[in-house]
Amino acid sequence: MEPTDLNQRNRTDDDEFHPTARRIQRLSLHLTPVPSPLDRTHPELQALTCASRAAKLNVDTKSLTVCMRGKHRDVQEKVFEFFNSRPELQTPVEISKDDHRELCMRQLLALVREAGIKPFRYVAEDPAKYFAILEAVGSVDMSLGIKMGVQYSLWGGTVLNLGTKKHKDKYYDGIDNLEYWGCFAMTELHHGSNVQGIQTVATFDPITDEFIIDTPNDGAIKWWIGNAAVHGKFASVFAKLMLPTHDTKGVSDMGVHAFIVPVRDLKTHKTLPGIEIHDCGHKIGLNGVDNGALRFCSVRIPRDNLLNRFGDVARDGKYTSSLPSINKRFAATLGELVGGRVGLAYSSVSVLKVAATIAIRYSLLRQQFGPPKQPEVSILDYQSQQHKLMPMLASTYAFHFATLHLVETYSEMKKSHDEQLVGDVHALSAGLKAYVTSYTAKSLSICREACGGHGYAAVNRFGSLRNDHDIFQTFEGDNTVLLQQVAADLLKQYKEKFRGGTLAVTWNYLRESMNTYLSQPNPVTARWESEDHLRDPKFQLDAFRYRTSRLLQSVAVRLNKHSKTLGSFGAWNRCLNHLLTLAESHIESVILAKLIENVKSCPDASSQAALKLVCDLYALDRIWNDIGTYRNVDYVAPNKAKAIHKLTEYLSFQVRNIAGELVDAFDLPDYVTRAPIAMQSEAYSQYTQYVGF
Amino acid sequence: MEPTDLNQRNRTDDDEFHPTARRIQRLSLHLTPVPSPLDRTHPELQALTCASRAAKLNVDTKSLTVCMRGKHRDVQEKVFEFFNSRPELQTPVEISKDDHRELCMRQLLALVREAGIKPFRYVAEDPAKYFAILEAVGSVDMSLGIKMGVQYSLWGGTVLNLGTKKHKDKYYDGIDNLEYWGCFAMTELHHGSNVQGIQTVATFDPITDEFIIDTPNDGAIKWWIGNAAVHGKFASVFAKLMLPTHDTKGVSDMGVHAFIVPVRDLKTHKTLPGIEIHDCGHKIGLNGVDNGALRFCSVRIPRDNLLNRFGDVARDGKYTSSLPSINKRFAATLGELVGGRVGLAYSSVSVLKVAATIAIRYSLLRQQFGPPKQPEVSILDYQSQQHKLMPMLASTYAFHFATLHLVETYSEMKKSHDEQLVGDVHALSAGLKAYVTSYTAKSLSICREACGGHGYAAVNRFGSLRNDHDIFQTFEGDNTVLLQQVAADLLKQYKEKFRGGTLAVTWNYLRESMNTYLSQPNPVTARWESEDHLRDPKFQLDAFRYRTSRLLQSVAVRLNKHSKTLGSFGAWNRCLNHLLTLAESHIESVILAKLIENVKSCPDASSQAALKLVCDLYALDRIWNDIGTYRNVDYVAPNKAKAIHKLTEYLSFQVRNIAGELVDAFDLPDYVTRAPIAMQSEAYSQYTQYVGF
Repeated sequence: MEPTDLNQRNRTDDDEFHPTARRIQRLSLHLTPVPSPLDRTHPELQALTCASRAAKLNVDTKSLTVCMRGKHRDVQEKVFEFFNSRPELQTPVEISKDDHRELCMRQLLALVREAGIKPFRYVAEDPAKYFAILEAVGSVDMSLGIKMGVQYSLWGGTVLNLGTKKHKDKYYDGIDNLEYWGCFAMTELHHGSNVQGIQTVATFDPITDEFIIDTPNDGAIKWWIGNAAVHGKFASVFAKLMLPTHDTKGVSDMGVHAFIVPVRDLKTHKTLPGIEIHDCGHKIGLNGVDNGALRFCSVRIPRDNLLNRFGDVARDGKYTSSLPSINKRFAATLGELVGGRVGLAYSSVSVLKVAATIAIRYSLLRQQFGPPKQPEVSILDYQSQQHKLMPMLASTYAFHFATLHLVETYSEMKKSHDEQLVGDVHALSAGLKAYVTSYTAKSLSICREACGGHGYAAVNRFGSLRNDHDIFQTFEGDNTVLLQQVAADLLKQYKEKFRGGTLAVTWNYLRESMNTYLSQPNPVTARWESEDHLRDPKFQLDAFRYRTSRLLQSVAVRLNKHSKTLGSFGAWNRCLNHLLTLAESHIESVILAKLIENVKSCPDASSQAALKLVCDLYALDRIWNDIGTYRNVDYVAPNKAKAIHKLTEYLSFQVRNIAGELVDAFDLPDYVTRAPIAMQSEAYSQYTQYVGF
Repeated sequence: MEPTDLNQRNRTDDDEFHPTARRIQRLSLHLTPVPSPLDRTHPELQALTCASRAAKLNVDTKSLTVCMRGKHRDVQEKVFEFFNSRPELQTPVEISKDDHRELCMRQLLALVREAGIKPFRYVAEDPAKYFAILEAVGSVDMSLGIKMGVQYSLWGGTVLNLGTKKHKDKYYDGIDNLEYWGCFAMTELHHGSNVQGIQTVATFDPITDEFIIDTPNDGAIKWWIGNAAVHGKFASVFAKLMLPTHDTKGVSDMGVHAFIVPVRDLKTHKTLPGIEIHDCGHKIGLNGVDNGALRFCSVRIPRDNLLNRFGDVARDGKYTSSLPSINKRFAATLGELVGGRVGLAYSSVSVLKVAATIAIRYSLLRQQFGPPKQPEVSILDYQSQQHKLMPMLASTYAFHFATLHLVETYSEMKKSHDEQLVGDVHALSAGLKAYVTSYTAKSLSICREACGGHGYAAVNRFGSLRNDHDIFQTFEGDNTVLLQQVAADLLKQYKEKFRGGTLAVTWNYLRESMNTYLSQPNPVTARWESEDHLRDPKFQLDAFRYRTSRLLQSVAVRLNKHSKTLGSFGAWNRCLNHLLTLAESHIESVILAKLIENVKSCPDASSQAALKLVCDLYALDRIWNDIGTYRNVDYVAPNKAKAIHKLTEYLSFQVRNIAGELVDAFDLPDYVTRAPIAMQSEAYSQYTQYVGF
């Protein structure tokens, strides 16, 4: 959109209807004779039309692909080839819920038992490889990716991360080879985000040396539990541990712990006594995953079934833990589950790549309208289509590098258990998961709409991608809640700074930009508008970080003020939108910094030039989207705002010129994108053949 | 989001870390001692927290419902009651494509033959009643609404509006009583928006007195044709009329005309010779509609099958028309189809009402987290949830009145055929269809996300509402193309103004605000920030209209400049984003003006107060969303921008306090909203019962 065009009191355009303005303009030019490179006759800007006359970058797709590729392309190709060779294992466009669930189970069984790809060991040993498998499997069918995640990261992950040797000895092989299908039973009907509010109880019975699992009311029914409706044999059930005491209270609540509860008979597959399971039913997407609801009525399990890494109960009912409080144990327990967020952020980028590839390939193919008596033009030549898709393409590149970095940092953390790294990964995974999945969700709708009627055919993928991906915004932590964790972490760091403490690695930039913030924006640089300046990574990063620092400073002050009258909960809520903006602003800074790093370190010159273009578009588009903020603090003067807008449109046009190469570099073969309208040759005829012509 | 909090150089908050700023601030206060009511201790603002302590409006839901209701509630209730009494005609949550199509056909047959509701006559006689039936039927199943629209507005509409008496005599009863199921075959594989580019040909054969219909290449296959895959007996086929000439060319292209082509045998239902029909297959939504693709190979139809209202061919092959050119005839032909857009805009608001009702009722029910040792709070008490849902609720009200007005104007036009009214309805229906359907599409995603995991259950409706509604953005005119029509119309009006001509009724405001625009923004009013001023409809409307006028003026000048070097097509494309912003800005002004009118004319005081609140939130939220534009032209000074933001958050909180009553006033019974999580009593237990507990 082009609202700064309102802001053209100095432009000659307006003058023919407006002699007074012309006089004012002449006068003001005398007062402030600022050179304005973008108002000069600018050959490239002249070419910003449907016909591409501008100099086009030469992109070597293969080199760019090499720069993009993760380390585990080989295993991904193995996954693709396996499913490509087995048509009966591919999910058809239309399939009933029940058939889809069975197919997904067969897909996972075939992967493990026939293709010989066994993801479980990598959950702990080589998470980057695990996520690479997850990404590939999710491209085959997102339901399969999620079912794999439920089995290995969630059910398997609780056994590995919250259990001890006895649990691994007993369950590892069954989980690995899919004899022990399992569930992760945390969420309840009434409690999702507020995990500490769950009400399921596990009461120790010292007489029989067992725990008794109970659902005290319908609000405590375990809900949305993957693998529960059909396939699960076991569940790791999160419940409040209740220990008998000798005082008048009778029991003592030790906080949330996880327990292994067998839910179906290993041989007959019948639901075990005391357990009631119902099917949560049809979902918007991911119908290949069998989500169920579980109610427990005095279900007895041996004491050994407590996953006792962070807290244990002895034979006599005595509780021991290496951690001093309920809150510390809760944090340690949930901290082990952070891998799920890493996987979602990473897989969300993968969905975005597929959608952007389909939308852009089709927009290059599709022609509609044109100049009089000339051939119709590609719809990607329309400024409006570039506006929809080119910043999205740039963001996809930005997110690619940011989430790859997250995966690597997470792997490092799993090896080193360095405490600072743990904190970093926690906040970074929360922020990237929230920011990237929200962006992808919006983009999927934009892609569908940008592809018009043919985008509405199920076979062209936008429907299933959107429906399957939709819940990425909610599960493994609701995005609005996760962003608040990021904001809370920033505030903690902010207080540390004033206490002279050290900042977490990712947050280091705040130290410097906080100091910059303490001075007012520079009225001279606020007017700089040359292309060189606007494309300088230093300007871009400074602008992002300045914004974050100001938001952080101002919200800290507001919280402090309001908490005196409203209490800390009320003050937090009064500042909630401000806090969410802060968190998003911070994540955008982190993503930009990582992208700039990757531009710098790119070994191939032509790829580097392409990445630089993408980086500039990402940065300036974000600044333009929030131009009100920058204008309000006079960080950006009106002339500069206008220059940023013009350059953003120009960069969109430049990126459009290499859009085909940029999506090719994602290296997604046709049997992964699958949409007929996005086939790399004969797309239309593949589409007509699909419907039967 | 709260980015103006960056803009707080004058606030005491910032000062504790920042002595220099404090000094500057004190100085600046002496220089410009502007009274700042929102910085005063403001009891209501103090209460902007999770607990609602502010004075709450008393809303009489029944009176408000009366203010909202259209004239045809009785027939809508008849529709609801009929389907409510016939469970076997209700669409289940999971249904296969083929079953869904058969069910939809049976639903429409039952409506017409059993409930005795025959919509066809109202298409011409009482369009407001027709749209009311369409809205109600769409609430039962959106596929049913679309199937009804295909049969009566599209297939039936072409016979009524493009045909003459002979056609009505022959087809009216069969269309009305559903013996003659029919299709509207305009779109082709290669041409959707560019209807003049379609390639199907109808060549007159003077020897046999027939037209020969041909699909010259695969790009000309008729695509997405509703009723074609399974049920259609006839199709109104849009094709280029080719008449034999006696010169060397042999034939002459007379432009696009519509022809009635029988496609299946009336008795055997077999596809007729020369016609190839395939199923377009599974779609993202609306799978109860059987869209097909049609290829014609020398299909002969009698000369009488030309729908000859705007152009006719005599026995000897001579062409006659009341209209002088191909372009005029094309415009007249398409002009008759504008009713489809009116229906979509109107039905889209109906979808938005259902979604907003579900999301808001659940957000009132759902509790999560809370202050220490106190009960958990409703999620609608969170500022972030209010930010997501309250401006949406206000917009729903605004769109309700705007589309009701559109329906009434359209009905009037159908009676009077007043030429100026025709132009008005054309642009207004294009603009409202594009703006409202885009807004609804985005809102459906926001509603799902705002309802978290339970929003992802298919039974809670967001999935089907979104998937079914999605294509509203594309069919009956792609939104991006329709907005360009609005912009083009504005530019035409703009030129008229300078020629001293009259403006269309809806555009009248431009005359005045264009004059205002010629003066620079007033630096004094740009700083006014009192609540009274910001809630003054004059300020709000002036701000909206000022923006539109400036966008119009500046784009006219830019187009003029660029067309000299780029030609008119290139210039239009260079300004495309600017033009789209102009069109949206104009539509927003029209919607606001209509809402203000309805507030003024509301007869009941308590309803009027509620509507005023809603109106202020709608207006200020839109201004805030585009604050960068207003800041850039100094229409709004920094202090005012901040006041607008604060007031918007406060109004969201105020609207939250009457949100329950506001959705109740939509008067949607539980059997229309249907989502268990939004039931008006015992929602959670209806939900657990649904899954089998």
